[in-house]
Amino acid sequence: MTARPIVLLLHGPNLNLLGDREPEIYGTTTLRDHVDRVRARCDDAGFDLEDLQSNAEHELVEAVQRARRRVAAIIVNAGALTHYGWSLHDALATYDGIVVEVHLSNPNAREPWRHTSVVAPVARGTIMGFGGDGYDLAVEAVRRLLEAR
Amino acid sequence: MTARPIVLLLHGPNLNLLGDREPEIYGTTTLRDHVDRVRARCDDAGFDLEDLQSNAEHELVEAVQRARRRVAAIIVNAGALTHYGWSLHDALATYDGIVVEVHLSNPNAREPWRHTSVVAPVARGTIMGFGGDGYDLAVEAVRRLLEAR
Amino acid sequence: MTARPIVLLLHGPNLNLLGDREPEIYGTTTLRDHVDRVRARCDDAGFDLEDLQSNAEHELVEAVQRARRRVAAIIVNAGALTHYGWSLHDALATYDGIVVEVHLSNPNAREPWRHTSVVAPVARGTIMGFGGDGYDLAVEAVRRLLEAR
Amino acid sequence: MTARPIVLLLHGPNLNLLGDREPEIYGTTTLRDHVDRVRARCDDAGFDLEDLQSNAEHELVEAVQRARRRVAAIIVNAGALTHYGWSLHDALATYDGIVVEVHLSNPNAREPWRHTSVVAPVARGTIMGFGGDGYDLAVEAVRRLLEAR
Amino acid sequence: MTARPIVLLLHGPNLNLLGDREPEIYGTTTLRDHVDRVRARCDDAGFDLEDLQSNAEHELVEAVQRARRRVAAIIVNAGALTHYGWSLHDALATYDGIVVEVHLSNPNAREPWRHTSVVAPVARGTIMGFGGDGYDLAVEAVRRLLEAR
Amino acid sequence: MTARPIVLLLHGPNLNLLGDREPEIYGTTTLRDHVDRVRARCDDAGFDLEDLQSNAEHELVEAVQRARRRVAAIIVNAGALTHYGWSLHDALATYDGIVVEVHLSNPNAREPWRHTSVVAPVARGTIMGFGGDGYDLAVEAVRRLLEAR
Amino acid sequence: MTARPIVLLLHGPNLNLLGDREPEIYGTTTLRDHVDRVRARCDDAGFDLEDLQSNAEHELVEAVQRARRRVAAIIVNAGALTHYGWSLHDALATYDGIVVEVHLSNPNAREPWRHTSVVAPVARGTIMGFGGDGYDLAVEAVRRLLEAR
Amino acid sequence: MTARPIVLLLHGPNLNLLGDREPEIYGTTTLRDHVDRVRARCDDAGFDLEDLQSNAEHELVEAVQRARRRVAAIIVNAGALTHYGWSLHDALATYDGIVVEVHLSNPNAREPWRHTSVVAPVARGTIMGFGGDGYDLAVEAVRRLLEAR
Amino acid sequence: MTARPIVLLLHGPNLNLLGDREPEIYGTTTLRDHVDRVRARCDDAGFDLEDLQSNAEHELVEAVQRARRRVAAIIVNAGALTHYGWSLHDALATYDGIVVEVHLSNPNAREPWRHTSVVAPVARGTIMGFGGDGYDLAVEAVRRLLEAR
Amino acid sequence: MTARPIVLLLHGPNLNLLGDREPEIYGTTTLRDHVDRVRARCDDAGFDLEDLQSNAEHELVEAVQRARRRVAAIIVNAGALTHYGWSLHDALATYDGIVVEVHLSNPNAREPWRHTSVVAPVARGTIMGFGGDGYDLAVEAVRRLLEAR
Amino acid sequence: MTARPIVLLLHGPNLNLLGDREPEIYGTTTLRDHVDRVRARCDDAGFDLEDLQSNAEHELVEAVQRARRRVAAIIVNAGALTHYGWSLHDALATYDGIVVEVHLSNPNAREPWRHTSVVAPVARGTIMGFGGDGYDLAVEAVRRLLEAR
Amino acid sequence: MTARPIVLLLHGPNLNLLGDREPEIYGTTTLRDHVDRVRARCDDAGFDLEDLQSNAEHELVEAVQRARRRVAAIIVNAGALTHYGWSLHDALATYDGIVVEVHLSNPNAREPWRHTSVVAPVARGTIMGFGGDGYDLAVEAVRRLLEAR
Repeated sequence: MTARPIVLLLHGPNLNLLGDREPEIYGTTTLRDHVDRVRARCDDAGFDLEDLQSNAEHELVEAVQRARRRVAAIIVNAGALTHYGWSLHDALATYDGIVVEVHLSNPNAREPWRHTSVVAPVARGTIMGFGGDGYDLAVEAVRRLLEAR
Repeated sequence: MTARPIVLLLHGPNLNLLGDREPEIYGTTTLRDHVDRVRARCDDAGFDLEDLQSNAEHELVEAVQRARRRVAAIIVNAGALTHYGWSLHDALATYDGIVVEVHLSNPNAREPWRHTSVVAPVARGTIMGFGGDGYDLAVEAVRRLLEAR
Repeated sequence: MTARPIVLLLHGPNLNLLGDREPEIYGTTTLRDHVDRVRARCDDAGFDLEDLQSNAEHELVEAVQRARRRVAAIIVNAGALTHYGWSLHDALATYDGIVVEVHLSNPNAREPWRHTSVVAPVARGTIMGFGGDGYDLAVEAVRRLLEAR
Repeated sequence: MTARPIVLLLHGPNLNLLGDREPEIYGTTTLRDHVDRVRARCDDAGFDLEDLQSNAEHELVEAVQRARRRVAAIIVNAGALTHYGWSLHDALATYDGIVVEVHLSNPNAREPWRHTSVVAPVARGTIMGFGGDGYDLAVEAVRRLLEAR
Repeated sequence: MTARPIVLLLHGPNLNLLGDREPEIYGTTTLRDHVDRVRARCDDAGFDLEDLQSNAEHELVEAVQRARRRVAAIIVNAGALTHYGWSLHDALATYDGIVVEVHLSNPNAREPWRHTSVVAPVARGTIMGFGGDGYDLAVEAVRRLLEAR
Repeated sequence: MTARPIVLLLHGPNLNLLGDREPEIYGTTTLRDHVDRVRARCDDAGFDLEDLQSNAEHELVEAVQRARRRVAAIIVNAGALTHYGWSLHDALATYDGIVVEVHLSNPNAREPWRHTSVVAPVARGTIMGFGGDGYDLAVEAVRRLLEAR
Repeated sequence: MTARPIVLLLHGPNLNLLGDREPEIYGTTTLRDHVDRVRARCDDAGFDLEDLQSNAEHELVEAVQRARRRVAAIIVNAGALTHYGWSLHDALATYDGIVVEVHLSNPNAREPWRHTSVVAPVARGTIMGFGGDGYDLAVEAVRRLLEAR
Repeated sequence: MTARPIVLLLHGPNLNLLGDREPEIYGTTTLRDHVDRVRARCDDAGFDLEDLQSNAEHELVEAVQRARRRVAAIIVNAGALTHYGWSLHDALATYDGIVVEVHLSNPNAREPWRHTSVVAPVARGTIMGFGGDGYDLAVEAVRRLLEAR
Repeated sequence: MTARPIVLLLHGPNLNLLGDREPEIYGTTTLRDHVDRVRARCDDAGFDLEDLQSNAEHELVEAVQRARRRVAAIIVNAGALTHYGWSLHDALATYDGIVVEVHLSNPNAREPWRHTSVVAPVARGTIMGFGGDGYDLAVEAVRRLLEAR
Repeated sequence: MTARPIVLLLHGPNLNLLGDREPEIYGTTTLRDHVDRVRARCDDAGFDLEDLQSNAEHELVEAVQRARRRVAAIIVNAGALTHYGWSLHDALATYDGIVVEVHLSNPNAREPWRHTSVVAPVARGTIMGFGGDGYDLAVEAVRRLLEAR
Repeated sequence: MTARPIVLLLHGPNLNLLGDREPEIYGTTTLRDHVDRVRARCDDAGFDLEDLQSNAEHELVEAVQRARRRVAAIIVNAGALTHYGWSLHDALATYDGIVVEVHLSNPNAREPWRHTSVVAPVARGTIMGFGGDGYDLAVEAVRRLLEAR
Repeated sequence: MTARPIVLLLHGPNLNLLGDREPEIYGTTTLRDHVDRVRARCDDAGFDLEDLQSNAEHELVEAVQRARRRVAAIIVNAGALTHYGWSLHDALATYDGIVVEVHLSNPNAREPWRHTSVVAPVARGTIMGFGGDGYDLAVEAVRRLLEAR
């Protein structure tokens, strides 16, 4: 029996507050809700899901390092680290699987410092502005990209 | 019998050359292939598809103007107009339906002048970097957003 | 019998939506209302009015080209082309009559990309921020400038 | 008997030299000529005119402060203070009537430091480039704006 | 009998006014004169000439698209589109023949917005500042480049 | 009997309108209220208060000049001069006592031109964002700094 | 018996070295001294003090997260994170109490990279340049702000 | 008997403090000493001297206005107004005699905001960095320039 | 018996992947190989080596703090923190021994964001571009600098 | 017998290495080959050729100085001096004949510091990107320009 | 008998063309005339004059190096090297006598690249805009500075 | 008998003054001392040393040109040319051996114009901040790089 491909879902700083913080931007769904939904979606697609939320850049860096050669794809919403997490950028640059960047809202429609992403240059693609549906679209994108390999 | 919601698929300058131009960036699928695929996808989702490719900004502007109050969603890949098509921006700003921006490749990974999008600020969300799959994801996004209304 | 001087009133992209689009900025008067008013005003002043609204820069460019040696003054509200329509700029630079730039609202009080006008350097004067009254003031300005010749 | 609305005409530094200084830019009309003309125009429109020319920013600031709740509109040609008079800007920002900015010439066609106006963001509208006719247009604009109240 | 190589001569917005507009910059030769001269020169070199002047970017874009695999070289003087015609840039980028950029005057010696060319990065070479002689030099350059293939 | 240390409270342009102007930013307390409160506070701390509000930079400059060797501390809210009053800056740079800068609101949260302070580089410290309480905190800061001498 | 309001005092990276590092800038008081003083001051004001110094941004982020709905005010001296700690910024943006930013010295008088604060936009007010007295002033500011609620 | 040419010596804000303020930059000579010295020098050269020091820009502006057609040369050390006194710039631009700019120290060797002079573009020449000797050199320069007329 | 001087070798984020990540840039030597080599070199020079690799900035900050007064020199390759680790910068600024910055490759030859080092201003010297040999050179530099004390 | 017009061909630093250095950019033709070719071409056109390659800016400056009133045209490929040789720029500005700038490759397609030419503003025209053919085109351009005199 | 102090007069590139080049900017006096005049002036003041004009930066650098400990003052008009001659800057920085910078015209009134002087930061003072009189003023300045030692 | 590899040591402008100039930055060792030391070091390593100090960029350029195919490595301290010597940059780019850049002090800790090196992009590595020891480290680096070939 072959192992199912693993998808790693990473959330950066303060995203543990989802559903609580600035609902006019992020909606009322909690992080747990989002993760459960991604897990269900992954299950449908035949993937196992691992997930990590951390407020510490180094924990995300190390999760990416551990993912090498083992995890098929990383879906990452890096929170504020999107804009200055160059160590996370370097870790993703060494990762050998698929990276999909997701943002619930459109960062370009917010403060100027949110317009630059250090994750984007090392991601295969980006999905932003669709709220929680963005995660479903990301899993679907991963499914197609793995199929196409 | 209720009319099915209409989705308008817009392509900007030079995208009629898809499948032909710079295949290392855009792949070998032609515009016709992409449109057919979106049509099939729309059909599955219960939408009618209208599509237009034009090398003239004003034709895209007028297509957006005609879409008001009649078309449920616009999926737009504006080609080079993404970066200076302010009239298209103004037209999309007046449109009352859902706007989804799609790019086959990741513009941020190309020349600097492609890093700014004048479409993004007037779009609900953006999907980029997934090749033709991006269109499927866009239709799926539209389906969910219409359902959520 | 001498011919009456001709005034050409030009409107750029999306201004055909006037009265419909973003009424908190542009008011509820339609483009037709504005043109009728300018026509009445021109009639009072002894001018004939020609008018064109186009979403295509080249149609505006060609209207300016045809106006040379024939039209006494151009009143132009170039819409979004105000900010990047360098071909329109070049056409106006070759025009031998009076150019008056009009904006219904104050572009400097809106998005940063609206703060630069490529029309201004080739206009005799600019009137902005007075809504539809700005057109009347423009006709009045034209009347005085022609008288002063 | 109702009092007539008051219009305050403000001129900034060095405009007392009008008619004398750089006639190729400002014409040969003196400040007195301009003020008399505005007064006549105001009289026609049923307004009383007050006017002040000062080379001192604080005198203009205080004239604006005294105008609150008493003066219906301010027509201001701030001279060089247009470009650095932030205290005048703050005073105009607190003023509760109509502010119309006038420039005889087109400042955008002169030195770069004249391209920025600190008056414009707190003005209702701007009229520039029409020489002395600009004052007439400004009174006309005020008349319409007061009527529309 | 083998067909002669085709050269396509493209002129952008307002260049139909050549000989008429700003003669101190562009000289008094008309566009027709320039085209006739290029045609004679091409004839000498054994080329057929096609030419198009358009004020519409999309018509130039489409002319470039039609030129693929059929036209040996494009000589282009894009007028104001030189500075913002990114769609033309994209079209030329997909073109498989030789592109030579020509300017009658030296754009670097004119307004700052004329110092950037979006055509240059997709041209084989640029010839500027030699007036109408620049076209002859361009045909000569094309002749040599085709010989060297 | 030793003289009590003198504190000089300076207010710049338009602050005489406090309590009147933009209450959502500055509150409803008048300048007189603020000065009375500072006087009471100074009295508690054993200081004499002198105060000046002026719309004229030179009057503030001269007040600072007169304060040398006589006044123990200057508390200054320079209004719009905060951002361009280089002469006031120079005067404060020559002053030999303590300078404390106060702002009722947080200038960094307002227009960009309010983000730079020419007073800050010549002040001992800055207190901003606490409304009228900021003055009390400033007197307290002065009291401690004088004690520490 | 009602609980006393809690004040959370946060210190960022390297501030554990206070009293030791660069005494010409920060003075010779240790962090422990500063905290004890703030505690005494809070006690006088009827507040309980919690404090944390951490060199890790995520620990500060998590302290802010735990403070929500429980802690009345945060006094924060973020050390170098003041200038790049966007995750701390995001955490403070979600915090529902009062945030007061304190700096012992005036960061604007030091290296350019210290002139920008990512804490300031999410703080109620800022006190800088008064050494250890700044903490006392901050507690006093908190006391007044809580009273005013 | 012919009148002797008049030289006007202008000093801007805070220069009344010369000899007192920052002696390591400006030396210990007082303004009175400098003026006396210039007067003696002018006397030798056959000029009458008028002088004005003012902390108010408008007083300098008006002194320049009064100098027109009456004063042969203005020697100006505008203090901080050198860097933002655009009204003084405009006044000097209208002045019909010789303008010589003097600085005791070398502004280029001080803070960046002192590197730009708004006086320089309207001065015949500039002498800076020679302390009080600069005034003597300025009188000598004026003498030669008048002789050369 | 005197203790041998201690050298602390610090490696920042993702350098634990050395020998594995982007070998065309960093070579195939692992971090362990590099550390062993530095240890041998230090042993030859009479130094004890301590080493730490961490993906967390705060662990590097704290290692630097513990090194004060105890460790003779720090050799640091900060990985991506080189470019944004201001807290590490502050810690190194307080360190009282010798700091030598090492980079295996030449960061100036890579992406622009790698061209700025926040470590360099607080380092005695920098060695970059020599691969693993750079560490040997750094130990040699430390040896000489200690000898010269 | 009339003397033939002289053409001066100047080559700047490192161009003596042509045919040897970076052949993928500059081709394999040596400088001697290029000069011989230009000489032949000049001979056909009835010109005498002088040539100089120098690695020293001052030798090029002095060659230009000697060319005044004696040499009909200068064809210059200034190598790296193109980008910082302001003394060469000044010399060419004083030269009274025709200056034609040639580059073998397109400098705009290389490093950013090669995008600026200090020669271009003082050249009649520029020919770039055509390899050695550019020299032939330059001689042809000179021939026509001289004829047109 | 004591040796007379030596003054070294340096002229940079192209100044050997003075009197010949761009007379509307530099006048018709030749370099020889200027040097003779400075020599006469130096003789009056009791100085010996040495002079050098060179188009080569290194010759100026070496003249400055030879002047150390031997020459009392250097008067330098560096021509275009004023704007990029950093080696000359370094040489002047090591020179132990007086440096006076002279420009015939006002460089600030010419092209932007002439607005920056690399000589100014290492000069005692600057005299510009007075034509050849500037040299006389410079000798006078040197005389006073030497006397004041 | 095989020839020993040659190392070329290049010093740029003003470095002949080493030991004399600004000793607080460069130390008291003379250039001769440095060269002797490098020679001894090269001798130990089995290399012959050639050395050149020149104040003229072209002499350095030509030394580099002569080094091609003959010299194994160049150690270069280019003095002020480090920051603007693009011709030297071009020469080094064509050189086929090893280039090592050395600076005695850390240029990043001095004036901003010294922060950019045009040598660095064409050097294998850079060693800066270690005074004369930097030369020893450079020879050692060369030794290892040659061994590794």
